Amino acid sequence: MARIDAGRLLEDLHTLRGFGRFRTGVHRPTLSPEDIASRRWLAGRLAEAGLEPRIDGIASVFGFTRNPGRRLLIGSHLESQNEAGWLDGAMGVIFGLEVARALPQLPIDVAAWVDEEGHYGSFLGSRSFIGEVTEEEIDRAINRTTGESMRSGLERAGLSGVPRVTLDDPSRYLGYLEAHIEQGDELEAKGLVLGVVTSIVAIWNFRIRFIGEQNHAGTTRMAIRKDARVAMTRLANRIDDTFPDVIAERSVWTIGRMSLDPNAPSIIPGAAEMNVQFRDADPAVLDRLEAHLRRLVAEADAAGPCRVTIEVASKTIPKVMDARFQDALARAAEAHAPGRWQRMPSGAGHDAQVLALRMPAGMLFVPSIGGISHHWTEDTKEEDIVRGCAVLADAAEALLTQS
Amino acid sequence: MARIDAGRLLEDLHTLRGFGRFRTGVHRPTLSPEDIASRRWLAGRLAEAGLEPRIDGIASVFGFTRNPGRRLLIGSHLESQNEAGWLDGAMGVIFGLEVARALPQLPIDVAAWVDEEGHYGSFLGSRSFIGEVTEEEIDRAINRTTGESMRSGLERAGLSGVPRVTLDDPSRYLGYLEAHIEQGDELEAKGLVLGVVTSIVAIWNFRIRFIGEQNHAGTTRMAIRKDARVAMTRLANRIDDTFPDVIAERSVWTIGRMSLDPNAPSIIPGAAEMNVQFRDADPAVLDRLEAHLRRLVAEADAAGPCRVTIEVASKTIPKVMDARFQDALARAAEAHAPGRWQRMPSGAGHDAQVLALRMPAGMLFVPSIGGISHHWTEDTKEEDIVRGCAVLADAAEALLTQS
Repeated sequence: MARIDAGRLLEDLHTLRGFGRFRTGVHRPTLSPEDIASRRWLAGRLAEAGLEPRIDGIASVFGFTRNPGRRLLIGSHLESQNEAGWLDGAMGVIFGLEVARALPQLPIDVAAWVDEEGHYGSFLGSRSFIGEVTEEEIDRAINRTTGESMRSGLERAGLSGVPRVTLDDPSRYLGYLEAHIEQGDELEAKGLVLGVVTSIVAIWNFRIRFIGEQNHAGTTRMAIRKDARVAMTRLANRIDDTFPDVIAERSVWTIGRMSLDPNAPSIIPGAAEMNVQFRDADPAVLDRLEAHLRRLVAEADAAGPCRVTIEVASKTIPKVMDARFQDALARAAEAHAPGRWQRMPSGAGHDAQVLALRMPAGMLFVPSIGGISHHWTEDTKEEDIVRGCAVLADAAEALLTQS
Repeated sequence: MARIDAGRLLEDLHTLRGFGRFRTGVHRPTLSPEDIASRRWLAGRLAEAGLEPRIDGIASVFGFTRNPGRRLLIGSHLESQNEAGWLDGAMGVIFGLEVARALPQLPIDVAAWVDEEGHYGSFLGSRSFIGEVTEEEIDRAINRTTGESMRSGLERAGLSGVPRVTLDDPSRYLGYLEAHIEQGDELEAKGLVLGVVTSIVAIWNFRIRFIGEQNHAGTTRMAIRKDARVAMTRLANRIDDTFPDVIAERSVWTIGRMSLDPNAPSIIPGAAEMNVQFRDADPAVLDRLEAHLRRLVAEADAAGPCRVTIEVASKTIPKVMDARFQDALARAAEAHAPGRWQRMPSGAGHDAQVLALRMPAGMLFVPSIGGISHHWTEDTKEEDIVRGCAVLADAAEALLTQS
């Protein structure tokens, strides 16, 4: 069995937490000064671990093994959401570093994929690695919060003109492993300490528009109003009331974005828009939910007086994790925490879903206290962190030595 | 009876429509180049009418009579909402000009109050005239659309350092008359052509806040969510469903502004806010609606899981129009359109409510086609415009000669 060094692991995690510290979490958005500093620090730690460090032209950080043989790639992301948690992403990267240190004789590459959190785009680092990001996409990428172009951020990081690392030959790798905090409360609620990910759920987003008639809020009688807000909140409630009847056990749905036009206290909104999102790992469930949503929209449109339309904003497909990788993680989990782990889908998106397009991939979850993530209070018990890393190391060793 | 010149009246209205023409309406926000040009044009027309023209330090335009005796003040506003109608405000100003021309022997002052439409503030022109606007308020005033300070706009207009006209001696005036488009469809729906305003309704605005728990839209089970959006749309629907049972005949309510925090498709909103507004002319009805709204908020808060709070954002009081002014308008209306006029409250706010704080005030409405206003399609039949001006002139003559 691999021997990880719990003290070294925790010390590195706490050092990383110092880059952009925000209360008990971190504020380390992609290419912020703190993020750039953390990438340089990581490259140094990878070098000290005997790996060949590299920060590529899109700011992903790599540590390449000098050992021969088909490699295992282990990684996650370094940057955080704004004012968010210290473990989201960072934990999986440091796990990769620690596993490489614990198994110095095996061919393990470590990666910190840039911008998984989407400050500039969508999975830019891992998608760049598998060859799916053009120079034009980087040219167009703008920071959603600051408005700075990604090119300008890369220049500040001293990465202008630096080539990107891309996966030219997938057969060079045995596959990809990623550990991550669960970001939900399912493990905690069930008294479990580890989750072996079976698949990463699909995310379907729909844009629903309401067209009414803008008018004066003082002089327009209630009877003749075509208030787009009324139509929107009424449909939102229909969704809330009826989705429980059509969902599967783990389906989730969210209306996280709404807008009124013109959004002024004394003007009846003439138009409104909302985003309806749902997630599930089962394509049949996804189809059922879409059909139900379209039925509700058609009913709302027919009821009047506002027009209601729906269009697909985006749809991903569920990404199934490799069976052999799942089994290796499951055996290691059972060894370290007998009966206290489960197989489960991931409700969140991860870089593993991108890597899974090119190579076998597996993911391991550790519990999130109270299910909280994307917030500075996000945390995980120390013993769960250490156990997770030990399980990941054992699975990596098994995968590399039994193939 | 006063003799207005319909051709001259319509020609002036169409000339004014050329300043900032937008489709069939106008885009003439306060202190825009087109607005400044229209003020200079108006000052010239007032001078041609034999009045003493003046553009004061806040950009209100006045035409002062040279005739002796207690004066009648007639006015409205020149600027428009963004991309809005050609008659809202403008009609009442040109009516004032035409009435002064039709009654050259009587003491009539004409006023175009700046910024009734609230690009920089709230009734700045009329409030400045009655002495309720400090220099500090002007210092702080910022254009809601462009962000330019009012001081900068006044400088562009060449009005820096120009004194403001203020009402030092209210006894100098007999009172104030304002004609305006109805902005609703009540006159049209009843087949009427004139409305004598009885009062200007009170507007009560409430800020309702929802505090939930921001979380990940993929990993957070439905059962443990505290979604501020769900709480907000549920309460909005309760308001829509139950207000019809507690309102009076002409009450209106509007939820025209809503916001979600952080308003992103994949994040469960941790907070939300909406503005609930209602209007009525009867204080007892206003109190009943507030009590009902507070009860709904308390029920929503008690139901959980989100906290729901309410606070008053603003409250105006109903402004009753002077009985003698109402009667003068009513007699003139009956003479010009027997049986085709009514007394009615105004659902919209007007400069008359400000002037009413210092002197008797009266208002006259002409119909709005389809009830549309604050939109470039706003319009009124030519015959209704001409009739309205004739009625205003007769009422003015009666008030000035019978006192």
